[in-house]
Amino acid sequence: MSGGGGKVRYGMVGGGEGAFIGAVHRSAALLDGVLELVCGAFSGEAERSRRSALALGIDADRAYPDFETMFRAEATLPQERRMEFVAIVTPNHLHLPIALAALRHGFHVLSDKPATATLDECIALRDAVRASGLLYGLTHPYAAYPMIEEARARVAAGELGSIRKVLVEYHQGWLAQPIERSGQKQAEWRTDPERAGRGGCIGDIGVHAFQLAEHVTGLRVTRLCAALYRVVDGRALDDDASVLLQFDNGARGLLSASQIAVGEENALTLRVYGDKAGLAWRQEEPNTLWIKHADRPAERLRTGGAYLGERAQAAARVPAGHPEGYIEAFANLYRDFAAQVRAFAGSTPPCPVRNAVPGIDAALRGMAFIDAAIGASASDAKWHDFPRLE
Amino acid sequence: MSGGGGKVRYGMVGGGEGAFIGAVHRSAALLDGVLELVCGAFSGEAERSRRSALALGIDADRAYPDFETMFRAEATLPQERRMEFVAIVTPNHLHLPIALAALRHGFHVLSDKPATATLDECIALRDAVRASGLLYGLTHPYAAYPMIEEARARVAAGELGSIRKVLVEYHQGWLAQPIERSGQKQAEWRTDPERAGRGGCIGDIGVHAFQLAEHVTGLRVTRLCAALYRVVDGRALDDDASVLLQFDNGARGLLSASQIAVGEENALTLRVYGDKAGLAWRQEEPNTLWIKHADRPAERLRTGGAYLGERAQAAARVPAGHPEGYIEAFANLYRDFAAQVRAFAGSTPPCPVRNAVPGIDAALRGMAFIDAAIGASASDAKWHDFPRLE
Amino acid sequence: MSGGGGKVRYGMVGGGEGAFIGAVHRSAALLDGVLELVCGAFSGEAERSRRSALALGIDADRAYPDFETMFRAEATLPQERRMEFVAIVTPNHLHLPIALAALRHGFHVLSDKPATATLDECIALRDAVRASGLLYGLTHPYAAYPMIEEARARVAAGELGSIRKVLVEYHQGWLAQPIERSGQKQAEWRTDPERAGRGGCIGDIGVHAFQLAEHVTGLRVTRLCAALYRVVDGRALDDDASVLLQFDNGARGLLSASQIAVGEENALTLRVYGDKAGLAWRQEEPNTLWIKHADRPAERLRTGGAYLGERAQAAARVPAGHPEGYIEAFANLYRDFAAQVRAFAGSTPPCPVRNAVPGIDAALRGMAFIDAAIGASASDAKWHDFPRLE
Amino acid sequence: MSGGGGKVRYGMVGGGEGAFIGAVHRSAALLDGVLELVCGAFSGEAERSRRSALALGIDADRAYPDFETMFRAEATLPQERRMEFVAIVTPNHLHLPIALAALRHGFHVLSDKPATATLDECIALRDAVRASGLLYGLTHPYAAYPMIEEARARVAAGELGSIRKVLVEYHQGWLAQPIERSGQKQAEWRTDPERAGRGGCIGDIGVHAFQLAEHVTGLRVTRLCAALYRVVDGRALDDDASVLLQFDNGARGLLSASQIAVGEENALTLRVYGDKAGLAWRQEEPNTLWIKHADRPAERLRTGGAYLGERAQAAARVPAGHPEGYIEAFANLYRDFAAQVRAFAGSTPPCPVRNAVPGIDAALRGMAFIDAAIGASASDAKWHDFPRLE
Repeated sequence: MSGGGGKVRYGMVGGGEGAFIGAVHRSAALLDGVLELVCGAFSGEAERSRRSALALGIDADRAYPDFETMFRAEATLPQERRMEFVAIVTPNHLHLPIALAALRHGFHVLSDKPATATLDECIALRDAVRASGLLYGLTHPYAAYPMIEEARARVAAGELGSIRKVLVEYHQGWLAQPIERSGQKQAEWRTDPERAGRGGCIGDIGVHAFQLAEHVTGLRVTRLCAALYRVVDGRALDDDASVLLQFDNGARGLLSASQIAVGEENALTLRVYGDKAGLAWRQEEPNTLWIKHADRPAERLRTGGAYLGERAQAAARVPAGHPEGYIEAFANLYRDFAAQVRAFAGSTPPCPVRNAVPGIDAALRGMAFIDAAIGASASDAKWHDFPRLE
Repeated sequence: MSGGGGKVRYGMVGGGEGAFIGAVHRSAALLDGVLELVCGAFSGEAERSRRSALALGIDADRAYPDFETMFRAEATLPQERRMEFVAIVTPNHLHLPIALAALRHGFHVLSDKPATATLDECIALRDAVRASGLLYGLTHPYAAYPMIEEARARVAAGELGSIRKVLVEYHQGWLAQPIERSGQKQAEWRTDPERAGRGGCIGDIGVHAFQLAEHVTGLRVTRLCAALYRVVDGRALDDDASVLLQFDNGARGLLSASQIAVGEENALTLRVYGDKAGLAWRQEEPNTLWIKHADRPAERLRTGGAYLGERAQAAARVPAGHPEGYIEAFANLYRDFAAQVRAFAGSTPPCPVRNAVPGIDAALRGMAFIDAAIGASASDAKWHDFPRLE
Repeated sequence: MSGGGGKVRYGMVGGGEGAFIGAVHRSAALLDGVLELVCGAFSGEAERSRRSALALGIDADRAYPDFETMFRAEATLPQERRMEFVAIVTPNHLHLPIALAALRHGFHVLSDKPATATLDECIALRDAVRASGLLYGLTHPYAAYPMIEEARARVAAGELGSIRKVLVEYHQGWLAQPIERSGQKQAEWRTDPERAGRGGCIGDIGVHAFQLAEHVTGLRVTRLCAALYRVVDGRALDDDASVLLQFDNGARGLLSASQIAVGEENALTLRVYGDKAGLAWRQEEPNTLWIKHADRPAERLRTGGAYLGERAQAAARVPAGHPEGYIEAFANLYRDFAAQVRAFAGSTPPCPVRNAVPGIDAALRGMAFIDAAIGASASDAKWHDFPRLE
Repeated sequence: MSGGGGKVRYGMVGGGEGAFIGAVHRSAALLDGVLELVCGAFSGEAERSRRSALALGIDADRAYPDFETMFRAEATLPQERRMEFVAIVTPNHLHLPIALAALRHGFHVLSDKPATATLDECIALRDAVRASGLLYGLTHPYAAYPMIEEARARVAAGELGSIRKVLVEYHQGWLAQPIERSGQKQAEWRTDPERAGRGGCIGDIGVHAFQLAEHVTGLRVTRLCAALYRVVDGRALDDDASVLLQFDNGARGLLSASQIAVGEENALTLRVYGDKAGLAWRQEEPNTLWIKHADRPAERLRTGGAYLGERAQAAARVPAGHPEGYIEAFANLYRDFAAQVRAFAGSTPPCPVRNAVPGIDAALRGMAFIDAAIGASASDAKWHDFPRLE
């Protein structure tokens, strides 16, 4: 399964003790046995960073106090030992400096979203990626579910006809109370403009919804109308957002994101309607995809079904009826990025594999969306053009 | 069950052969055995009107060629024989003249929605109702489901805390193709401004969604931002609508209505989030109401449950697990309006009964919503005040 | 709608104040406006019977003190006034004497299930029905749901292939505690062998499950293995039952019925598997029918769908997405029985209409099932032949 | 996370190219980064075995041609290098000889289910395990889902009251046609008594259902009545089974297992009813557990909920709303077995950890169930005692 010759080696910045998403990245990277975590700078505090590295079984001399030290040191190692890419899982404000430093030292980058703290930063990053010729990937795990692969394939094949309406929602309830004031670490940095960037809810989860909508439909947003709210008193960033969308083919859309939808867990849903058929998908029950027809019964497609397309098949690991979850979706990103890294290194032919990993262009569109939504929300005018990015 | 002395007598205008909603009204009126259809002007064509009346078992001399004749004739009948109210089930443009004529002749009015074709008409109607001192009811059947009664009661009791976010959707797919051009009668008049009024989708179903949102939350919309679309080429009226809402307590909302959501049947859903808990309800599975909590499992409330409030109990007819449907909800409106008529006539004491029937004020708000949404959609400005009505 | 000349007239025995199922029968009979309740003996107590009649708007001289008096008196009325059939909604032990008396006086019979208290009684009833030449119908409402019509049609058309496995469940929780000892009327008679007959749960709800399984598959049970339990201490009749089934084509089945499944409402479900496809249906969400395929996505069929067969279409009253419930299903039985009565009277041609009303043969099979299950449960042998009935 | 000092090392027998369950075991073992696959005899064909080992990145000198060679060679390696336990993922008939050989050479055993091909073999295995003093685990992954942990905890805490009724189903459709005759490898050995043992469906999946029922309720089956069928012509083993159960506390149960339920994927469900409350769980949507109450709304518990018990919390890896699936459940078994191995080795204190891994006693009960069901099915008598094991 791991192909010719050893595992793909990666290092990690962030994700030390107590972090959430770092652990998910590492599990995802483990699942298929094709990746190896060889080094890390897991925390801004050197001691904590080292403790985390030890707990993860990393050699003591590759438990680095900070990312600059790590990149410098790794770059001096023999090619067959040194890390091949870095996974960035820090708060948002650090994404840019880490990514730039990694590229500078010749390492590919796989970054948690959003790509940077601001759109300008992301343009700088885009330019750096292009200049480097290296690989850049952004972890939007929801796009890597098997049934999202299927949804995308069906839309691309014209099964829905011309797309007319796109409804995407991402609702959570965990920030319904000001828990950032009572020491919840995740809430602290995600509600803090210094660390999260300009977007609160819109940047934390709205951007996932935006990416999913463009990814599945293949359409591009051209105009938007936004209303971002700070529902919980005293918050500096939005915690709820409604955005009306217009797409490049004339389709209309509605994006609703909220972190104050009390009682909701991680309710990301997508509905797309064309002139022939519609589809519906819910992240909390990710192995089911509905295709809704005008004149015959709705069909319930399931992960593992023999009737699915090639890409959806490749994205699944167990037979139908054995549920695949969030970690498996995330693992698809790591597996695909590892394949990219191998092909880049020439150790495998540049295979035309399924590739669920969004790249720098998707990253830039995500940042542009956050930026545009914030700008549109502050304006009295209804419609605003989506920024042109080249 | 029918209380003191005979059934409440009503006449009908519209709803002849081939009509949809007229038959629903009549079934609803039959269900509890407290109402009797005694006369009608079922069609603009006298012959068709008479045929319909005969098929319905109405005495030949009370099968009227038109509503004016009917009201005049009925008004001359002895009090114990003549109709007590008229049910109006015609296309929208006829609602006003019929209602005014009925009031003029001293008959109460129970009208299908929307109340009139335009807001100005509705203001005129409101004035006429007030001047007459007679009863006016509008048939929003979705508000009469038992679990909507429960939802409303729970919100009123503060169980959700302060309301923050309201999501209401009404999605259908039956107008995804221009079936009005191939002779579908329902589609013909509902897409024709002459008969439907200024609103297409927004007036046909959007107004139900609006009414449900205000009805359950007890809040009032104060501002809105709207985007109405004519998706199917050549349509004169909107067939898809997205509306952002602001409520009088500061809560925000999102209303999505569509008749081009191919594959959808009658997908009216309501979600409300407060600072303590949330609720969710789907019309297509109307006997379930979800209460979602911040810190304990979501609860699934069911029609007929012994734990429900008084009004939800009264709105149900059979034990839990025996599904109640659309006709039963509609029948609640007729039963309640009949009780109003009886109390008005003094044949029963003015009972403080549960009353699910929206009156002229709700009717006016509905028309104002349609009007405001159309105006806001045409404007480049984002937010628009909801009209002051008085 | 009511066809030529007036409504079909019926009388009722049982169903007075406080009864459950009588009210359901009456609502069902009202729904389509083709039936009229003209007389009744609603209670064993004459005074209560009269009170009920008055409340129902029945003429005082047709509020009878008992069923014998009613049949005698009605038989003397002019043909165009007298009742045409009797609806029997008493506890089970009275079904036989009432039905026999009705037939004797020339009245058709529509009876609640089970047909009688014992199998022997039912054989006597069958003979009497045959001798009379009159109509007999049994109210199994679950068989009259639109999607059950569709299920039956699909099986009959061979869409599932040869049937192999049938799973039918009917689970309720309302008898999980001995509420019959604290005055709950429904529980009192249903747990009392004097009034309910030999079967408890098996006779009250198990027989519905049995009827549904045979009705939809068109198969006949030939052998069974049964285990009936009295879970709640002190009960004289079973309150929980598991029955293994063998069908005449070799298919196997499993029937589970329980009234002590705490937390369940009215959970009647049917699953059928053939060698080509399977189906699944749940009474609590009756407007959905699943067809499950071997090699393509499962299909979700819905009441009102344009793709449904003729009979399912005819069994629905409102468009797709407007839920139809238990009363509507029950109303299908009344509407169909009324059509039978009319055709019998010659007032309409003997139409080849859809007919969801089980007749005396199905009634007899139901009683044979109850009898056989009780016998088999008491035996140490595993398999028992289903009684031959003729 | 990996505790003190390196990963737990294991070898694998079976699971070479093209096998299904071997790959699942390996992914599960990878997920938490605490285990390392160090050697294997992946196939009866030496060449295929070596190819598989290479593809898995195993050192060439630890790719063994057969299990005997492997155990002998590994036993000679230094303690800190040699495998600590063997994972057995072969067809059933090989489970016993491999397990015995492993124990003989001093290796712990983690075996796929069923434990052996026959009950007698399992008794022999039990005796060998006891004599060895070594660890034995059986991989029933369904018992390791977080919500099954919760279900078990709630039953144990008395929340359901005294258990009365247990319904467990395991339905698949993949053997609805005789695919074993057209070269499907999985179907070939699972329908072949030489390799599968005496049980077909009952041994392949029925035993999972049995284990789940006993595991969650804490009850033990004491008597059963069984009907096993060979539905597809020409099959030597059962492919469908219905079993009535009696438990040691007097509760009754129903177990239905089928591999010819066409259209079903992996439909394992459990419902338990006590005298206070009931519960329901479906493997295909494993992150939801229903608690159904007599007198208040049903509750929907979710993986990751803060209200869950300690063991359910420990069994989950990501926050609520991020679905966990089959591989994660399987990984819980590996993680727990690794913890047992470590504690056994003394490298960690004998921690009172949550332990979802069924041991040799559960394995023996499973084999006794298969044996008893086959015997009971062949008998004309209804009830049969569950074998006494000791």
